[in-house]
Amino acid sequence: MIILVANLGSTSFKYRVYDMPAERQLARGGIDRIGQAESRCTVEIGSHKEEISRSIPDHAAAVQMCLDQLTDPQHGCLKSADEVKAIGFKAVFAGHYSGIRIVDEPLLAEMERLFDVAPAHNPPYAKAMRQLRAAFPQIPLVAALETAFHDTISPALRTYAAPYEWKEKYAIQKWGFHGASHRYIGTRMAELLGRNDLKVISCHLGGSNSLCAIKGGVSQATSMGLSPQTGLLQNNRVGDFDPFALPILLKLSGKTLPQILEDLSERSGLLGLSGVSPDMRDVEEAAAKGNERAELALNVFAASIRQYLGSYLVVLNGADAIVFTGGIGENSSRMRRQVCENLDFAGIELDEAKNQSVKGEVCLSTPGSRTQIWVVPTNEEIVVARQSLAAVSK
Amino acid sequence: MIILVANLGSTSFKYRVYDMPAERQLARGGIDRIGQAESRCTVEIGSHKEEISRSIPDHAAAVQMCLDQLTDPQHGCLKSADEVKAIGFKAVFAGHYSGIRIVDEPLLAEMERLFDVAPAHNPPYAKAMRQLRAAFPQIPLVAALETAFHDTISPALRTYAAPYEWKEKYAIQKWGFHGASHRYIGTRMAELLGRNDLKVISCHLGGSNSLCAIKGGVSQATSMGLSPQTGLLQNNRVGDFDPFALPILLKLSGKTLPQILEDLSERSGLLGLSGVSPDMRDVEEAAAKGNERAELALNVFAASIRQYLGSYLVVLNGADAIVFTGGIGENSSRMRRQVCENLDFAGIELDEAKNQSVKGEVCLSTPGSRTQIWVVPTNEEIVVARQSLAAVSK
Repeated sequence: MIILVANLGSTSFKYRVYDMPAERQLARGGIDRIGQAESRCTVEIGSHKEEISRSIPDHAAAVQMCLDQLTDPQHGCLKSADEVKAIGFKAVFAGHYSGIRIVDEPLLAEMERLFDVAPAHNPPYAKAMRQLRAAFPQIPLVAALETAFHDTISPALRTYAAPYEWKEKYAIQKWGFHGASHRYIGTRMAELLGRNDLKVISCHLGGSNSLCAIKGGVSQATSMGLSPQTGLLQNNRVGDFDPFALPILLKLSGKTLPQILEDLSERSGLLGLSGVSPDMRDVEEAAAKGNERAELALNVFAASIRQYLGSYLVVLNGADAIVFTGGIGENSSRMRRQVCENLDFAGIELDEAKNQSVKGEVCLSTPGSRTQIWVVPTNEEIVVARQSLAAVSK
Repeated sequence: MIILVANLGSTSFKYRVYDMPAERQLARGGIDRIGQAESRCTVEIGSHKEEISRSIPDHAAAVQMCLDQLTDPQHGCLKSADEVKAIGFKAVFAGHYSGIRIVDEPLLAEMERLFDVAPAHNPPYAKAMRQLRAAFPQIPLVAALETAFHDTISPALRTYAAPYEWKEKYAIQKWGFHGASHRYIGTRMAELLGRNDLKVISCHLGGSNSLCAIKGGVSQATSMGLSPQTGLLQNNRVGDFDPFALPILLKLSGKTLPQILEDLSERSGLLGLSGVSPDMRDVEEAAAKGNERAELALNVFAASIRQYLGSYLVVLNGADAIVFTGGIGENSSRMRRQVCENLDFAGIELDEAKNQSVKGEVCLSTPGSRTQIWVVPTNEEIVVARQSLAAVSK
């Protein structure tokens, strides 16, 4: 069965095409600058690579473009667009509509109701899903909600100490995100180490960041809360923050609450602290050149990762493995070093030589380290493909 | 030198009187239900104990009543009220006016400006300090700010990942509180174990709660943030909470932002979760009788303490001692057990038999535990007396 897995941004569409259940990747591609005069469309099918520029007005047109490329008589991998039996999405937040769901009106309405809570994620997904439902009514759309992996977290670790009725009436609780990535890491580590009872701390560090404590493949705790703004700092989002700063900011800044929340979700995180960029590579480069605010941003980031790392060592009573994944987790040797230093109380020791040159799946701890330290590239798309297959096979 | 240390609530005034620098406690007492028809005034001077009922309209009248009792010809410990050379206060929050300060107009104005941030603490202190300045202009009032002990925390652990200018312009940063108590525990543990280089995790659990990582007597990290509402859950305050819940609550509850912040600072914490009481003893009793929400409240509380405990084990790279203090820390064997269970990854082991019967200063860990576990009753008043002596001796 052919399944297309879509990764959406407000002006971008990236995808992979899988033949399932064989998990064979047939193609991958992406279209960016959607809505602008010139969109860039790239596709890789087998050894064939192509890049063209064309005007792509919206996400429906982007999917049509993708289907045209996939069914191209010369280089395509499909005979007909009808072969695509599902489009799977790593959807972010729909409150109590967690789990894996066929995209329908109640789900879309809930995602739209929660725009304020996930302002970077829900709007592009809800909008694009509506376009695709209208344009491709014959293809089921499957939403694999990012919160689903965390449904196993105990009430003690997912309940805010707020008035209890807020949880029941308004779904105010810690939801957690990055479910596809943490699920992949849990599954993959069990394969790599040949054990199903592993205690793993998964560190997904990329455009957005979260830690997850996993035991036997099951989420026990995660750092993001109600919204994907909380927990660790993000590229341009704040991470944990005290709501009682808001009355001060309202008084002193002259801004409104929506404006302040926008600052917290767009002008904070690595960007807000460094003043340089939301991109880790730029911030590390600036810090290396002596930029003090960039250095502070990196140190705040490392400290916040370490705080959750310590929490999860306690939640799990020690870990078999700490795993770094995501763009930063896989590529920033500095961040891995800062996170892992001075942990001998728990017998955790990074091999700094191995840490300097990482490629693919690799163990970076010393032979004597009680907890292994790994880099494992994540694969959220294959998780969504598996879940989409399950959803449409029902 | 005679120093009176005052502990203020909105309708209460508790005090201790010290002869300094000998640190000899001459008297202690308290007046509650201030402003009501009948206030209860208690005093202990040496072996003399007295309790009388009288109408006490405000905090100035309460201090006058206290001075009258202290100078009583028959039972008093002072010849004249003039002997009192300072009144010291464990003041909570005045932003950048941290440290130890003689109470003056700029300090009071700043405390008043920050009423929204510390609604349970700043209003009674600022109001009472104003009354006392007017009534006893000859006695210097000394504010020992609760934030001062935490001035040593590194920028990496006290900076929110918010727009950087908020820190510079509006003092939006993690301040930390309970400074007097954590300072006392750090000092006292150095005396008890005869070492000045100790790594201590101080768990102040009482009406309000915070953890502090202390190294060599110096604060390295603490759980409360900008406001005393954050960090661990409190008796009726929320602890860590996601500000992005606010747009949902504004829409769905029909409440205003000030009303929601009031819910978070008065109807949350142990009270909000349990629906029973803000008092730990009531919540434990209800949980023991099978009340599920009371049980949840205790489990959320223990989980949040453990999360910070893990963080601080990492901050300190292991600890020499974990110390419980405050009303809950000293008296709840259940909470100590829940916090300390399943920590063998770090070699930490509670002796449950010792944990069941605690009196005074006592070590509760097993002989083999790599980290000692202690109960040490705190003494915030003696810290304020020491600091007040230093302030008026300058």
